[in-house]
Amino acid sequence: MGQFQPLARGVWGILATPFRGDDLVVDTESIERLVGLYRTAGASGVVALGVLGEAARLSSAERRLALRTVVDAAAGLPVVAGMSATSTAPAMEEAGYAADAGAHAVMVLVNGGDAERLAAHLQRIALSCGLGIVLQDHPTTTGVTIAPSSLTRAVRDSGVVVAIKAEAPPTAPTIAAVAAEVEVPVFGGLGGVGLLDELLAGSAGAMTGFAVPEALIATVGAWQRAGYDAARDAYLPWLPLVESQDKVSLALRKEILRWRGLIAEAHVRAPGLAMPASLYRALDAHLGAVDMPPVG
Amino acid sequence: MGQFQPLARGVWGILATPFRGDDLVVDTESIERLVGLYRTAGASGVVALGVLGEAARLSSAERRLALRTVVDAAAGLPVVAGMSATSTAPAMEEAGYAADAGAHAVMVLVNGGDAERLAAHLQRIALSCGLGIVLQDHPTTTGVTIAPSSLTRAVRDSGVVVAIKAEAPPTAPTIAAVAAEVEVPVFGGLGGVGLLDELLAGSAGAMTGFAVPEALIATVGAWQRAGYDAARDAYLPWLPLVESQDKVSLALRKEILRWRGLIAEAHVRAPGLAMPASLYRALDAHLGAVDMPPVG
Amino acid sequence: MGQFQPLARGVWGILATPFRGDDLVVDTESIERLVGLYRTAGASGVVALGVLGEAARLSSAERRLALRTVVDAAAGLPVVAGMSATSTAPAMEEAGYAADAGAHAVMVLVNGGDAERLAAHLQRIALSCGLGIVLQDHPTTTGVTIAPSSLTRAVRDSGVVVAIKAEAPPTAPTIAAVAAEVEVPVFGGLGGVGLLDELLAGSAGAMTGFAVPEALIATVGAWQRAGYDAARDAYLPWLPLVESQDKVSLALRKEILRWRGLIAEAHVRAPGLAMPASLYRALDAHLGAVDMPPVG
Amino acid sequence: MGQFQPLARGVWGILATPFRGDDLVVDTESIERLVGLYRTAGASGVVALGVLGEAARLSSAERRLALRTVVDAAAGLPVVAGMSATSTAPAMEEAGYAADAGAHAVMVLVNGGDAERLAAHLQRIALSCGLGIVLQDHPTTTGVTIAPSSLTRAVRDSGVVVAIKAEAPPTAPTIAAVAAEVEVPVFGGLGGVGLLDELLAGSAGAMTGFAVPEALIATVGAWQRAGYDAARDAYLPWLPLVESQDKVSLALRKEILRWRGLIAEAHVRAPGLAMPASLYRALDAHLGAVDMPPVG
Repeated sequence: MGQFQPLARGVWGILATPFRGDDLVVDTESIERLVGLYRTAGASGVVALGVLGEAARLSSAERRLALRTVVDAAAGLPVVAGMSATSTAPAMEEAGYAADAGAHAVMVLVNGGDAERLAAHLQRIALSCGLGIVLQDHPTTTGVTIAPSSLTRAVRDSGVVVAIKAEAPPTAPTIAAVAAEVEVPVFGGLGGVGLLDELLAGSAGAMTGFAVPEALIATVGAWQRAGYDAARDAYLPWLPLVESQDKVSLALRKEILRWRGLIAEAHVRAPGLAMPASLYRALDAHLGAVDMPPVG
Repeated sequence: MGQFQPLARGVWGILATPFRGDDLVVDTESIERLVGLYRTAGASGVVALGVLGEAARLSSAERRLALRTVVDAAAGLPVVAGMSATSTAPAMEEAGYAADAGAHAVMVLVNGGDAERLAAHLQRIALSCGLGIVLQDHPTTTGVTIAPSSLTRAVRDSGVVVAIKAEAPPTAPTIAAVAAEVEVPVFGGLGGVGLLDELLAGSAGAMTGFAVPEALIATVGAWQRAGYDAARDAYLPWLPLVESQDKVSLALRKEILRWRGLIAEAHVRAPGLAMPASLYRALDAHLGAVDMPPVG
Repeated sequence: MGQFQPLARGVWGILATPFRGDDLVVDTESIERLVGLYRTAGASGVVALGVLGEAARLSSAERRLALRTVVDAAAGLPVVAGMSATSTAPAMEEAGYAADAGAHAVMVLVNGGDAERLAAHLQRIALSCGLGIVLQDHPTTTGVTIAPSSLTRAVRDSGVVVAIKAEAPPTAPTIAAVAAEVEVPVFGGLGGVGLLDELLAGSAGAMTGFAVPEALIATVGAWQRAGYDAARDAYLPWLPLVESQDKVSLALRKEILRWRGLIAEAHVRAPGLAMPASLYRALDAHLGAVDMPPVG
Repeated sequence: MGQFQPLARGVWGILATPFRGDDLVVDTESIERLVGLYRTAGASGVVALGVLGEAARLSSAERRLALRTVVDAAAGLPVVAGMSATSTAPAMEEAGYAADAGAHAVMVLVNGGDAERLAAHLQRIALSCGLGIVLQDHPTTTGVTIAPSSLTRAVRDSGVVVAIKAEAPPTAPTIAAVAAEVEVPVFGGLGGVGLLDELLAGSAGAMTGFAVPEALIATVGAWQRAGYDAARDAYLPWLPLVESQDKVSLALRKEILRWRGLIAEAHVRAPGLAMPASLYRALDAHLGAVDMPPVG
């Protein structure tokens, strides 16, 4: 692994980017509240500027503002910064800003199926910014597929990867195959819909943006202390709120965060899909049925 | 609606097609057991030869054998026969066989976004076979998208649709929009992952292939008698078994059916994906944690 | 290679399926004229029931009628029968009908990227029907990708392939890689847009449905006798008629066949796209500028 | 149209971004030579930082360097600057840099099918940077489809569009439908493969990156002066060099530019596909057969 320490196991929160007002400006106060929740709830760290953080919908000035706000509010909690670019030069540029802003690591998308080229890509980014890399396999965003064996080889050969985020469905078999071969933690994702499967397959925890991170932390903690049955009991009540309506999951997540008072407004920037009005009934029913932890 | 009666509300089971032996022959005894379960459990009917019934992987002789076996075993329980074809001529041919075999209705895929052409397609099929049509919107299979308003218009103008199966995610908003405008029942699908949302949006029940139909029947029954909280309580324990690992959901479903003794073997025909060995641990854990209803 | 002879080099025509009247019935007289043209023009053979022959839009009765008509009209010219199915059982069934009808070989789609499974699939089909296989790699239809090395291995290991139709773009590099490793002819396709590149890469000729097969035959003949410059001179005048408007290429092809008097009407069955009215001006201009060979 | 003048008809060149050395640095000298060619050859203008200019593979510093170099070398020839972002905030930021650098207009991707939302998106960008917009419909990049009627409405309602680049296949019918309804010029694209069809449909010229712009200029000029036959004669010899091998068209284009001495090296940045070695034979044959205009 060389110079970079693997990420801690546990729960890493993928942060939404809240917007405010008619102009949908980045809402730094809401970011601070959101990060504060992760800190007090016991997350291992947070990930800013991921796909669901709408990073590609922010200007570079907004990305830097959001990242600096997250790092400041994190107050020592490790922050991973997502890179939207899939080519080396723009990823290096973004990674440089992330390092300057005080990020702990950067998250880079798998940009091709060839292990050797991928390892070289990762090394150039890591060497330029001095940070380790969370390697994200997310074919929905990239259209790229990679075999688990190539993923493993790129991690080993590059020597710069500090965690893997495996989001090519089905996730659990990939996690099982890769986790047996690498020394860094492997996380799932996809909103947490397969979290129990992923833990059973050898996942190091959860790295997702479910709007009640306390539930993820309770579930992963129960898994670590007491195993499957306890984790299941902790997670079951939350499953109806976990991504059951594909394509509007970000809008739903932001509505839950707003309902909790964590963010001021729930807008999603175009071309992301807004919350369908007809879904509020389901959201209200699911929210009314759980024992929501108090905030702050 | 004209001459065709709308389908009954409640739970319709999408039947898997079980195979046996090295040659993966269609296993009619297992089909009979499976249909028997739906009959005794109180389903409103069953759907044979759907996408997840691997209809496109059967020869036409096998499709007819499977369908006849289902109709015989159903002993009066209504049987919907799925049509794989998206063009009129082959769909009419398949629909003719379905009518001869004693099917109650045929399920036809949305094959284009133009309401007028779709209505004409449906009418020609219905008139040729004399059966009503369950209209299935399943873009994952067809690559076709249709606006809810066009779906509604095709249903009204054709006068031959007896139910809608809405499987374009997010399903709940489509169900809400369409159910308010048509007189036929609208069902969701997609393995049941959004069942509670779909019921809240106005779905008439469940039309999916989850391997424990008793759980669907209990959930929909609870919804009808007592509303959301009761339905939620009934469904929650089963959610970890509901499609959490995309792309291998059919393999998982067949494993559960085999585990229950309903089918003899769990093979999936190529190019469908086989059960990944690393997923058995999760499957066993989920199965061990539920109170599985006894069979037979 | 065992018992099956490789296909002849040269030009193989992918046949359109002409329809007639308001009901779009299969027009056997037009089929006969079309096959007659290929026979008198000097084609090496024809391919019936391919993707662009709208095979998936025909009932099985229509498929058999079309195939018998082609074989009868071919009067000894070899006929390859396309298989729409990607699973073994329905492909075996279709292949059996093809053998009964007098087909020379069957064309089977690559249905997965694993060489061993693919070889087994091909062997089962070939052994059941007694015919050799034209292996078609057509990701636009199947969504399946296969590495050239796996394609090569499946051909060698199965021992039943008599030709390859390489239609994963870019086609020329795949043809170059595969043709160097197998003893059977490798053809391109995709409407002929890359024909010169494919010949230079080692293609054995042309296997496509361009509506002026005489031009393909003149081009491939010129290539064989005199090389690139002669082939280029022969092909250049026809390039504006070769698929320049993606997604409506079948409609355009049928209009050219109708213009030539080879088929009576140019309808395409739904969900195929009809000829856009605004394209007639371009079609007329292109047709007016070439020296069209007389028919019959 | 308000304050913005429509683009001139004729030929607009989509510029490649040349790279040099092991580190693939942006090669400003080659950019200058390339722009110089367009200027002396009589192009109406050039487009920098388009999809095929690999804009998404450049850091923001590189994008600005490339754009400034183009504007300086253009010496008064109008320069359109491509925007990679599909959301308003990052597109506004990029557009601001483009205005500062002296661009004449910005090119913005269609980011959704709703005319009203699209018009608002375009207006916000235009008002913030003070430049008119070339609206590019490129579903291969965006995954977004828009009806011609919605495209027309967004152009009319926004009042800020100065040209349309229609690249949703088939392009000619869309050009015919839209050009009849708007006052701004409509161009095709897709490498020029359908240029004759597009001119016949009402296109205002060519806006593409074919590596011999002199051929495009001769063809469009012949069309304007003498009509189809003359344009056809001018274009025919070049068609074998026009994108016949999908997915490697950028690599091929850069090789032609290098062969002509216009750029120093032909590298494509990852994840773009490099030139397959087996394609050099075809490239050499095509280049050897044309009467290439001398450079400089």
